[in-house]
Amino acid sequence: MAGNTFGHVFRLSTFGESHGPALGGVIDGCPSGLALDQEAIRHEMNRRKPGQSNIVTQRKEGDEVRFLSGIFEGKTTGAPIGFIIENQNQKPGDYDHLRSTWRPSHADYTWEAKFGLRDHRGGGRASARETASRVVGGAVARQVLAQQGIKIWSYVSSVGELQCAQSAEEVNAALIDSNTVRCPHPESAARMIELIRTVRKAGDTIGGTITCVAEGVPAGLGEPVFDKLHADLGKAMLSINAAKGIEFGSGFEGTEMRGTQHNDLFVKEANKLRTLTNHSGGIQGGISNGENIVFKVAFKPVATIMQPQAGVDKDGQPTTVKGKGRHDPCVLPRAVPIVDAMAAITLLDHWLRNKTSKL
Amino acid sequence: MAGNTFGHVFRLSTFGESHGPALGGVIDGCPSGLALDQEAIRHEMNRRKPGQSNIVTQRKEGDEVRFLSGIFEGKTTGAPIGFIIENQNQKPGDYDHLRSTWRPSHADYTWEAKFGLRDHRGGGRASARETASRVVGGAVARQVLAQQGIKIWSYVSSVGELQCAQSAEEVNAALIDSNTVRCPHPESAARMIELIRTVRKAGDTIGGTITCVAEGVPAGLGEPVFDKLHADLGKAMLSINAAKGIEFGSGFEGTEMRGTQHNDLFVKEANKLRTLTNHSGGIQGGISNGENIVFKVAFKPVATIMQPQAGVDKDGQPTTVKGKGRHDPCVLPRAVPIVDAMAAITLLDHWLRNKTSKL
Amino acid sequence: MAGNTFGHVFRLSTFGESHGPALGGVIDGCPSGLALDQEAIRHEMNRRKPGQSNIVTQRKEGDEVRFLSGIFEGKTTGAPIGFIIENQNQKPGDYDHLRSTWRPSHADYTWEAKFGLRDHRGGGRASARETASRVVGGAVARQVLAQQGIKIWSYVSSVGELQCAQSAEEVNAALIDSNTVRCPHPESAARMIELIRTVRKAGDTIGGTITCVAEGVPAGLGEPVFDKLHADLGKAMLSINAAKGIEFGSGFEGTEMRGTQHNDLFVKEANKLRTLTNHSGGIQGGISNGENIVFKVAFKPVATIMQPQAGVDKDGQPTTVKGKGRHDPCVLPRAVPIVDAMAAITLLDHWLRNKTSKL
Amino acid sequence: MAGNTFGHVFRLSTFGESHGPALGGVIDGCPSGLALDQEAIRHEMNRRKPGQSNIVTQRKEGDEVRFLSGIFEGKTTGAPIGFIIENQNQKPGDYDHLRSTWRPSHADYTWEAKFGLRDHRGGGRASARETASRVVGGAVARQVLAQQGIKIWSYVSSVGELQCAQSAEEVNAALIDSNTVRCPHPESAARMIELIRTVRKAGDTIGGTITCVAEGVPAGLGEPVFDKLHADLGKAMLSINAAKGIEFGSGFEGTEMRGTQHNDLFVKEANKLRTLTNHSGGIQGGISNGENIVFKVAFKPVATIMQPQAGVDKDGQPTTVKGKGRHDPCVLPRAVPIVDAMAAITLLDHWLRNKTSKL
Repeated sequence: MAGNTFGHVFRLSTFGESHGPALGGVIDGCPSGLALDQEAIRHEMNRRKPGQSNIVTQRKEGDEVRFLSGIFEGKTTGAPIGFIIENQNQKPGDYDHLRSTWRPSHADYTWEAKFGLRDHRGGGRASARETASRVVGGAVARQVLAQQGIKIWSYVSSVGELQCAQSAEEVNAALIDSNTVRCPHPESAARMIELIRTVRKAGDTIGGTITCVAEGVPAGLGEPVFDKLHADLGKAMLSINAAKGIEFGSGFEGTEMRGTQHNDLFVKEANKLRTLTNHSGGIQGGISNGENIVFKVAFKPVATIMQPQAGVDKDGQPTTVKGKGRHDPCVLPRAVPIVDAMAAITLLDHWLRNKTSKL
Repeated sequence: MAGNTFGHVFRLSTFGESHGPALGGVIDGCPSGLALDQEAIRHEMNRRKPGQSNIVTQRKEGDEVRFLSGIFEGKTTGAPIGFIIENQNQKPGDYDHLRSTWRPSHADYTWEAKFGLRDHRGGGRASARETASRVVGGAVARQVLAQQGIKIWSYVSSVGELQCAQSAEEVNAALIDSNTVRCPHPESAARMIELIRTVRKAGDTIGGTITCVAEGVPAGLGEPVFDKLHADLGKAMLSINAAKGIEFGSGFEGTEMRGTQHNDLFVKEANKLRTLTNHSGGIQGGISNGENIVFKVAFKPVATIMQPQAGVDKDGQPTTVKGKGRHDPCVLPRAVPIVDAMAAITLLDHWLRNKTSKL
Repeated sequence: MAGNTFGHVFRLSTFGESHGPALGGVIDGCPSGLALDQEAIRHEMNRRKPGQSNIVTQRKEGDEVRFLSGIFEGKTTGAPIGFIIENQNQKPGDYDHLRSTWRPSHADYTWEAKFGLRDHRGGGRASARETASRVVGGAVARQVLAQQGIKIWSYVSSVGELQCAQSAEEVNAALIDSNTVRCPHPESAARMIELIRTVRKAGDTIGGTITCVAEGVPAGLGEPVFDKLHADLGKAMLSINAAKGIEFGSGFEGTEMRGTQHNDLFVKEANKLRTLTNHSGGIQGGISNGENIVFKVAFKPVATIMQPQAGVDKDGQPTTVKGKGRHDPCVLPRAVPIVDAMAAITLLDHWLRNKTSKL
Repeated sequence: MAGNTFGHVFRLSTFGESHGPALGGVIDGCPSGLALDQEAIRHEMNRRKPGQSNIVTQRKEGDEVRFLSGIFEGKTTGAPIGFIIENQNQKPGDYDHLRSTWRPSHADYTWEAKFGLRDHRGGGRASARETASRVVGGAVARQVLAQQGIKIWSYVSSVGELQCAQSAEEVNAALIDSNTVRCPHPESAARMIELIRTVRKAGDTIGGTITCVAEGVPAGLGEPVFDKLHADLGKAMLSINAAKGIEFGSGFEGTEMRGTQHNDLFVKEANKLRTLTNHSGGIQGGISNGENIVFKVAFKPVATIMQPQAGVDKDGQPTTVKGKGRHDPCVLPRAVPIVDAMAAITLLDHWLRNKTSKL
């Protein structure tokens, strides 16, 4: 059973490889009657696309989305929304050396172990290029959520050892796109950009974290016991390339706390039940409690580096591998819209699922 | 769409509340022909059951599993395996004070926000008692995996600020059950037990982490792009009560590394492709690479504490809540077999899913 | 991937064999807040249970349903509803002769071909006894549907060559249970009963058809293009033991009609859009149109007969098989509540699914 | 929860409307390593495409399939296979009169009742044009099945009151495509073609039946209790436009038989277990028994007729509707490859599902 579909009611299926003819996807279960804002979709695609600054890959792709179905006179019809993104700036020749060599820590070896063969060009389907289709799905989901007053924003909260100097409660979301690294604290951002440049020059790569906040999520989303809201958000985030961890609210730090410190005490505020703190990250018992949902995702450094590394070929003989082509020294800046997208898809799916909870 | 089923090919559905007549579940998709080891199932149930030591809840439950179907003359038949566990030591009266009050950081409020009503007795379905059914499912899955040479073990790697002094590579799995906290490093364990006792005396609770290792997993498990192996393991773990985070391999620490440090270089060893390091935690591109799968799960301190806390009642009026009944000061020791179980279910599900990958 | 779950939002999973300890199931996705009418459930169980008349099997089973979860103070909580039905009147010895012989046209051979082994006692899981769990699920579903004004009724429309003398539009549903064969036209019923008795005396069995009508279904249920309402109803019905065919509205007869005859012309009636005829059986383009949903299910004669038949044993050697134990000469009378149940489950599932169609 | 995906392991998702930019789909779960025969796919597409003879619609469509992913150097990679079919011969102007009118017995009204709006051009998504994507999926599935010795063929067994003079056992499958109506009995075919022409001249339409045979299906396919092989085949067939009924083996006729007549007696033949008759249609207890799978599907006459019919507009006012554009007087000839396709998808899905039945 393959795994190229995400979601239960609002469902995104994606297809496409890095250097095949086109990427694309199908959004099934989008309710009818949504006046689709194409400009907003293009905006999200531009945030993810390669070549947008000098700290990301220089591959040039227009990433133009062509919608093929499910929209009539500007509105969603309830029918599946098919879309494609043609691949334009393909340089498959850049990858000939990978036909019979596996890059360390990349999907090259495992994909071949699983399927017995692989499209080696640019990582094939394992390439982060696949996430372009996720951003389309997310951009549609955000529009439905926005109508419900739900807003999602993510930002780079660390690059390597450099942390954003402000917490998720303190940052100004309006500043996220004000710099190329997408950290809303300008001084932190400047240091992060400098670090990525240094790493790039050294032919190396670097990891980091992205923090995501969802505002306005009503209490009641999440389906116990296995489809808890944070379980599904966790799966969504861990499915993004290079993601190796996730924590909600106080996360790993909270494991060192006592219950008396960690518990979020209730308080009635303007007729609304609130909590004084938000160590829970907006989710209790797997169900949203109406506070901001807050989580942080860990991304490892990109596997493809511009230095020679010891490797083996398919026959197990020692060889040397070195990245060619155009790669990101740090996935974080371009991963921000992907985190946004997967959060939106997951939250909309649960918002729709929740419509059948009560009589 | 409710969420009480986990898995796609090997599927566990659970039902039951803390103080209802019985818990239970259905295991569907267990291949026929498995000679079921009932003693092994009982062993896992005993590891999870309450009252087994003085650092866990004193509720007394036999947790006897009664299998109702799917087994004939000792073997699985391919039919669904239904089972129940009768609740015996119910003291619903312990919970009368919670009928109209919501405990802070518990599922009380969110469950009611979702469904409009709730079974308040002992947390109802939100109680960790539900995980008894998961342990049954996991104990069955482990037996199939064991036949494939796959072995899973978990241990308490931290309680509060106390870390296990050995890494996942260093610990001796045979010692996990040698003490009541389930940390295989005896001195670390002694300190942890002491800490839990202190916290308990103070009427408080404490969090910690559990590390899980899966040995012998063949390369090729995991279904890109959304059902990556660590995405599904992540969901499985985050669905466990009190889990707030997970990291694979180098995890959050790896975000501070450079690609040159993080990449796991290949090496041919006794005709098998291995990696020199295992920062990837045994999963690359979402697919297992044949190395040990290693991950760590963060558990927050238990919400129910034996001290008065400020709260509100259903009308939003300030009130005081204090735990009654029998609660764990620290979920970690009893969560170890639950982590084992969910890991086994996820891995078996993916092992079966992988049977259709290639012609 | 096993197939013991039906439905997407309202989902029934069943387990249990004819002569195992107990049957049961889990209803997941039942909305919270339904005041469950236990008497109505018992009523449906009694309609299906063996031994209720002299034209059905004489096995004696109380078929008492024990609910284990998901209900609190008489109302559904939104948690899964687990239930069991203990097997009481087991006579596994009646089946010893079937351990190594396969009855013709029964599931004995195919089940063993699939799983490599089988519980031979009373057909094991292939027994119609499994449908007891379906009746529980259906009886719950009917209560939700009834609140929406949706009413379902089925009746025996033919036994062998004997047809009910009235059409689905003409019959009086109130008379269905007025006789033991469940045909609402008394004279037709008398002839059918007589025929079944004759067949029984001859040690033979006989087939027939059941017609089902769903009244009050609103226009808009059904999910194109694969989950059309009649496609899912068709699957539901064909999953019932001995079912070999289904037709909606004009069905096979309609294949001989011209479009000018078959089209159901619209007419406005008391502010409601109606159709003058109902050749469509209430479903157009896979979606309900507000008219009565009408379909007919074909049941073959029961395979187990009380006469010696030529067969083979597991080694392919010729042998003679003869039914022992207690069997139905005609499944129709007891299949009526099962058709009702599966129709109710399918319609409620689609009613819930439809809640997310529009913004 | 929308319904645009079919299958569990081998899964087809489709999208696209009759007069939108393009149709297409995603095949997920096709095993890797299949050398795809593109010519065979084109052949199936040509069998379904409009304009191929004078008894079908004259719309001109090349129906060229463009594969976008999942194939590398001619072989399937295990990644999802995305494909599109551009719509070329669109005449949306032919449908302006349907913007505010509902054709009787068409999906116009029900679709709008469900979604609140609809793409009225050529039936939008409800058009049989959608089935082009199914034929692509089916043509891929057939290639995997062929490697297993499984062969599927369908033919027109009746048009209106005219029956094919040979039974499914007697017909010569090689003759199916020898005439434009796809009935392998030449004289019957000639009469059917004549009838369709007469009906067409009268501006009317006509129904009929298609019989499908699957040869070489091994015993053991089908997943009791809800996903019985004939239940899933039934759903597949009933999801095809205009299908109103299905019967397996003896079907409705079998309801008039006695068990002694209906039972298919076993016989050992050349070391293989066979049955002397095949009233079961190759499926017993929901699982294939190794005999030919045989079923018949009922298609109603096409709703769109070239005569004025009484109808109502959206305000419920009486109006007259008359088909414009290019329509089939009888769907049967072009439905044959669609029945083939859905049978192939269902059988491959079950063949893959069965891989996890036994240890």
